[in-house]
Amino acid sequence: MTPPSLPLPDITLAGTLFDTLRQNSLDGTGITRDSYGKGEQAAHDLIIRTAQSLDLEVAIDGTRNLYVTLPGVDRSAPCTMTGSHLDSVPAGGNYDGAAGVVAGMAVLAGWRAAGLTPPHDMTVMGVRAEESTWFPYSYLGSKGAFGQIDSAAVLALPRSDTGRSLASHLTECGGDPATFGQAWLSPDRIARFVELHIEQGPVLIEAGLPVGVVTGIRGAIRYRDARAVGTYAHSGAVPRRSRHDAVRAAALFIAAIDQDWERLEDAGRDLVITFGKLSTNPAQHAFSKVAGEIDICMDIRSLEPETLIEVDALLARRAAEIADRARVQFVLGERTGSAPAVMDVAIIAQLSDAAKALGIPAMRIASGAGHDAAVFAQNGIPTGMIFVRNDRGSHNPEEAMDMNDFAMGARLLAHALCPSWPARPE
Amino acid sequence: MTPPSLPLPDITLAGTLFDTLRQNSLDGTGITRDSYGKGEQAAHDLIIRTAQSLDLEVAIDGTRNLYVTLPGVDRSAPCTMTGSHLDSVPAGGNYDGAAGVVAGMAVLAGWRAAGLTPPHDMTVMGVRAEESTWFPYSYLGSKGAFGQIDSAAVLALPRSDTGRSLASHLTECGGDPATFGQAWLSPDRIARFVELHIEQGPVLIEAGLPVGVVTGIRGAIRYRDARAVGTYAHSGAVPRRSRHDAVRAAALFIAAIDQDWERLEDAGRDLVITFGKLSTNPAQHAFSKVAGEIDICMDIRSLEPETLIEVDALLARRAAEIADRARVQFVLGERTGSAPAVMDVAIIAQLSDAAKALGIPAMRIASGAGHDAAVFAQNGIPTGMIFVRNDRGSHNPEEAMDMNDFAMGARLLAHALCPSWPARPE
Repeated sequence: MTPPSLPLPDITLAGTLFDTLRQNSLDGTGITRDSYGKGEQAAHDLIIRTAQSLDLEVAIDGTRNLYVTLPGVDRSAPCTMTGSHLDSVPAGGNYDGAAGVVAGMAVLAGWRAAGLTPPHDMTVMGVRAEESTWFPYSYLGSKGAFGQIDSAAVLALPRSDTGRSLASHLTECGGDPATFGQAWLSPDRIARFVELHIEQGPVLIEAGLPVGVVTGIRGAIRYRDARAVGTYAHSGAVPRRSRHDAVRAAALFIAAIDQDWERLEDAGRDLVITFGKLSTNPAQHAFSKVAGEIDICMDIRSLEPETLIEVDALLARRAAEIADRARVQFVLGERTGSAPAVMDVAIIAQLSDAAKALGIPAMRIASGAGHDAAVFAQNGIPTGMIFVRNDRGSHNPEEAMDMNDFAMGARLLAHALCPSWPARPE
Repeated sequence: MTPPSLPLPDITLAGTLFDTLRQNSLDGTGITRDSYGKGEQAAHDLIIRTAQSLDLEVAIDGTRNLYVTLPGVDRSAPCTMTGSHLDSVPAGGNYDGAAGVVAGMAVLAGWRAAGLTPPHDMTVMGVRAEESTWFPYSYLGSKGAFGQIDSAAVLALPRSDTGRSLASHLTECGGDPATFGQAWLSPDRIARFVELHIEQGPVLIEAGLPVGVVTGIRGAIRYRDARAVGTYAHSGAVPRRSRHDAVRAAALFIAAIDQDWERLEDAGRDLVITFGKLSTNPAQHAFSKVAGEIDICMDIRSLEPETLIEVDALLARRAAEIADRARVQFVLGERTGSAPAVMDVAIIAQLSDAAKALGIPAMRIASGAGHDAAVFAQNGIPTGMIFVRNDRGSHNPEEAMDMNDFAMGARLLAHALCPSWPARPE
C-alpha cells in the first residue's frame, strides 16, 4: 500500500515563531539569547507554549534541554530526531540555531494539521548552550543529554559576561545541579538525527542554491599559541644576513603553507587554513626594531582525517625549513582539535534524492563550523544535516535567510524524519 | 719641513672617564643618562671638569650643548670638530654616544700631554638629547646648535618619563628658554666634523675587524601605519576562493618584498627592510575567524636615494598585486622618513689610508642608525664617522666595547682632526 502524501511543514507557524523569537531577544545591537539566561529561556518557553498548543509531548532533561515529541504509531520503535540550539552569541542573528528548532516544529505542526500519525515517534530537541562564547565548553547541551560531561566541573564554569557559575544560572532556569548532566538520550533508541541549520559561509549564496546537503562536519587541528622566536635588533644597523627576524619567518611560513593549501585543494582535498591571530609583542616591538618574536594562531579544518594528518606534518616541515632559512625558532605549542564527523551516507543519498524529486536545487557541502549533530554522529547515530542559504554570514545581526529557502529546507527535513514515506512532488 | 709626529690619544684618561660615567649613571637596570636631566648633566659636568683640568676652553650654547676647544696656532682658521651625544636611552649602555666625546677628549689630552699646538682649533662637542626616547624629536641638540629648531614648539615637548616640558628640564640644567635654540655654530667656520661611535649592529664583530670607516648614514622611508583590510569570516565555513584574508595578504606581501630585497642586495644595493610591528586587531581577532585587518609597520633604509625611491615603488606595486590576488585592500598610510647623509669622500679616503698606514684593520661600513653627524653633513660640512666594534648591540646594558678597539678608533680620529699632519706608524 502506498503511504499517504507526506504532510507539508507549517511555514506560517515558522514565520510567527521567528518574529516572536526576534522580538523576545532584540537587545539594541542584535539578537542575544544567552545560554542558561533570560534570552535562551524565553526561546525555550516559546517552543514549550507552541508544543502545548499543538498537543505535542514536552519533556526537559537534567541539562534543561527541551524535547517536543509527536507520538508515532509504534511508540516502541526508535524515534527520529531533529533540532538545534536555541541560544545565540551576544549581538548575534535570529537564525543561527533557532532555524533548526523552528523547522522541526513546522514539520510536527504539519502532521498535526493533516491529522496524520507517523509510523514512529518524531522528536524536536531544543539544545542548550551550543555557543561556547558564554561557557567555554563545546556542545555542552547535547553532550549533557548523552551524560557525557563532567557535571561538577561544568557546573563550576563561570559565564563570560556575568562571571557567575553555570550552577547559578541553571537554578534560575528551573534546573537542579543534582540532576544536571544525567544521561537522557540513549543512542540505540534513536534511528537518526537530522539537523537543519543556516549556512555560516557564502558557498550556497555564491552557487545560487537554496539548500545544501551536508557531507560532514570538518574536524580541526589547532595551534592557538604557536610562536616564532628570533632576536630583537636595530632595524637600520643589522644587515639581512645577520638577522633573526620573527616577522619575516612568520610571513614565509604562512606563504609556504598557503602554497601547500592551494596544491592540496587543487588535488581535490577538503581543506581550510586560517591564521586568525598574528601579533608581534606590543611590549617590545617598535618600528625601528627587527621583531624578536611573533605569536601565530593556526586553525586547520578538513572533512578528511588523512588531510588533517598530512597538513599537521606539513606545518612541522615548513616550520623546520623556515627556521633554518630565517635563523629563528618555531615553537608550535599545544595542539588541540576535533575529529571530523562524517554524515551518514544513506541520509546524504536520501536528502539528495528527495531534493531532486521535489525540484529543490541543492548541492553537497561540507560544514566548516561545529554543530550538535557532531555529538549525535559521534554516538554512532546515523546523522544528517541540511544547510539553508544565508547571506552575510552568521553570528551577527545581519544574518539574512529567505523564508522560501527555509521552506525548501523544512520540506527536505520532513522527508528525512519520515524516510519510510517516499518523497514525491506536490 | 715634515711636521712632528701626531700625538697619541690619552687612553688612560679615556678609561677613567668611562669608569666615572658608568658610576654616575648606573641605575640598577642599566646606564641612564636622561636628556636634560641629572644623568646627562652629570656627564656634561664630568667633561667640563676634565677640560678645565687640561686647560682647554669650555663653552656652552643656548641649547646647553658643550664645546671643549684646544686652541690652534691660527685661531682665525676654520676649526675641525668631533663629538657625539652624552645622553643614553633608559637602561642603556655606557658607550653609545659617550665614546665619541671621550675619544675627542683623549685626542685633545694627547696634544696637551705632548705640549704641541695644532695648526687650527680642534673642538669636542658634547651634544644634548640625541636619544629621541626622552623628547620625541630627532637631533634636538645638534639642530639647536645650528639654530634649526622651532624653539617654542620644542620647549613645550613633554619628556616621556616625567611628562614635564623641555623648558622645565632645561631650567634645571642651568639653561634659559630665552636663548634656547639660538644658532651657535656657523657651517663656514667648520672645516670638518668627524664623529666616533660604537657600531650598533654586528657587522664588525662578524667581520672580525676593530673599526669601520662609515660611508654614509642610511636614509629611510617609513610607513608606520600601513594596513591590509579584508573581511572577517568564519574560519571553518568560508572556502579559500571566498576569503578576503588580511593575514594571508600581509604574509604574501612581506614574502614578496623579501624576495625583492634579496634581488636588490644581490645586485649590490645597500638596503635593509624591516616590518617591526605586525598585528591583527586584538579587539576583533579570534582563532576561529579569518582576519579582516592587520596593521603593518615598515621601515626601509638605504644609503642610496635611488634605492629608496625604487623600493617605495615596489611597495606600492606588490601591495597592488597582492590586493588583487588576495582580494583585500592595502592602505599604506602616511609616509615619513629622512634623506641619506653621505660622508665626505675625501675624509673616507683619508680614514682608510690612515688605517692602512697605522696597521689598523678596518672596513667600509654603512651606518643604519642616525647620528648627529647627519646634521653636520646636511649643513654642507665635510663629515666623516668612525665605528668601533661593539658586541651585543646598543641601547642595552650589555654593550661591550674593547678598549683596544677604542684606542685604534681614537688614533684614526686624531688623524682625521688634523689632516695636515700625515698618518704614520708609531
